[in-house]
Amino acid sequence: MDFNVQYENTKKTIEANLSSYIEGIRSSEQKHLYDSMAYSLEAGGKRFRPILFLQTIELLGGKPSEYLDVACSLEYIHTYSLIHDDLPAMDNDEYRRGKQTNHMVFGEDMAILAGDGLLNTALEILFDRLVNEPSKNMALGAQAIAKGAGISGMIGGQVVDIQSENTAISLETLKYIHEKKTGALIEASVLSAALMMGAKEEEIKALKSYAHYLGLAFQISDDILDCTGDFINLGKKTGSDEKNKKTTYVTFFGLEEAGKLLEESVNNATQSLEVFDDKKSKFLVSLAYYVASRNR
Amino acid sequence: MDFNVQYENTKKTIEANLSSYIEGIRSSEQKHLYDSMAYSLEAGGKRFRPILFLQTIELLGGKPSEYLDVACSLEYIHTYSLIHDDLPAMDNDEYRRGKQTNHMVFGEDMAILAGDGLLNTALEILFDRLVNEPSKNMALGAQAIAKGAGISGMIGGQVVDIQSENTAISLETLKYIHEKKTGALIEASVLSAALMMGAKEEEIKALKSYAHYLGLAFQISDDILDCTGDFINLGKKTGSDEKNKKTTYVTFFGLEEAGKLLEESVNNATQSLEVFDDKKSKFLVSLAYYVASRNR
Repeated sequence: MDFNVQYENTKKTIEANLSSYIEGIRSSEQKHLYDSMAYSLEAGGKRFRPILFLQTIELLGGKPSEYLDVACSLEYIHTYSLIHDDLPAMDNDEYRRGKQTNHMVFGEDMAILAGDGLLNTALEILFDRLVNEPSKNMALGAQAIAKGAGISGMIGGQVVDIQSENTAISLETLKYIHEKKTGALIEASVLSAALMMGAKEEEIKALKSYAHYLGLAFQISDDILDCTGDFINLGKKTGSDEKNKKTTYVTFFGLEEAGKLLEESVNNATQSLEVFDDKKSKFLVSLAYYVASRNR
Repeated sequence: MDFNVQYENTKKTIEANLSSYIEGIRSSEQKHLYDSMAYSLEAGGKRFRPILFLQTIELLGGKPSEYLDVACSLEYIHTYSLIHDDLPAMDNDEYRRGKQTNHMVFGEDMAILAGDGLLNTALEILFDRLVNEPSKNMALGAQAIAKGAGISGMIGGQVVDIQSENTAISLETLKYIHEKKTGALIEASVLSAALMMGAKEEEIKALKSYAHYLGLAFQISDDILDCTGDFINLGKKTGSDEKNKKTTYVTFFGLEEAGKLLEESVNNATQSLEVFDDKKSKFLVSLAYYVASRNR
């Protein structure tokens, strides 16, 4: 099947299920919370992490349809992180994906609680799964997701990112921020699938390497887009890194060199998959190229 | 052993272990996050939920020392909820337990992330436990904690609480808020212990009833304290409910009637424990009286 068709099909399946895990409060006293959570869940986006997770499940011989809950939990975590990042006390962003940010529509208090609620629900989804399937592999996979999202992962990266605003940072710190802030949850999306499927040591090593370079490519590509993209394609004001005086791969290396680094990361990512059968790894290979080429 | 001695001993054990789960970031780039999380974890408090959990484990024949991790996860969740509740966009409180609130010391951005980090770490602790003990009972217990903290539990209660500020609310809504905002995590502290211990249906029913009335007593007692307490005993400015025009059991029923309701709740709580051996349930019975009598 064509990569783009397969990507869109997986995306549609995820989006059709995404809000079902909070359906229970839709007609309750928490309706306003539902609206706030659903607003951000349904605000679009690439659904990159759940797609990555489901395709890793498929690569390893599992049935993606049996892991939709876990896939959605990854999107819940990603969505909560965006809501909290956009808050006035953090990046103070008014737009995301062409729509007003959560706190602009629902107020700061509800945005904080919607974020808390999305994180909590993500982990509830994983506990629900563990109640039905209390296996060591499932627990290891869920643990990998929680750690990727946590204080040594995504949250930790956000902390260093905030501390680094308006200051010149080293390449080492720039790499550190990205490895944690975006990289950790992307890596967890792949690693959790591998652990849940009980993959072999060699396979896990290859997939970790793939995810690492994919995350790097993702971030360099984001930095390039922030510099060259436009509002319509990106759905947010571009040049915001420059406005916030953020150090990025582009401000550090310049546009051309950043482009080369992006290419290198994509090559490293795809080479990591060579231990797998070409047919099976086709989607994940294409995904690496997709990351490098989106919207340009 | 005397109740107060036993309470203090359990409290000390919990406090000696509380920060150990975030020790990994103490000397890292996330030191500032560690400081912010540890500040609130170590700001004192009754440690009511972890003590309740550990004593329920003991009542059912388990060894509390083997469940310290789970107990601490409950205090992490409680602490995160306080940090986020105190934020300027929420209750805008400057003091808690006689100390400045987290955002007053570390800034709003770090307080949001410290809250996120505490919630995430709480659930990581539970996943870590599940990796080592992937049993159905453990998964059920962890699920109960996550649900108690979630959008149909504690977070849900906070949403309705915020929506009800500066408006006259019905007794029904008042009860609803308390059952969710404070009650849900208190009930989860008892229920999770029962589920992890594989308690019988009848025992679970009795413990649920106990926890329900204990939570109610806890809240009525809080409302009375807010009205009659003082800064030194409570560590926060009193009369804040009146200042915020909040409906409480005191503003609704008056002080005397609220006192009677408190007594009734304590009686209902202790009666629920009659299915257990008197010697075994002694601590939890005393705990109900303790809730009604603290600081007065």
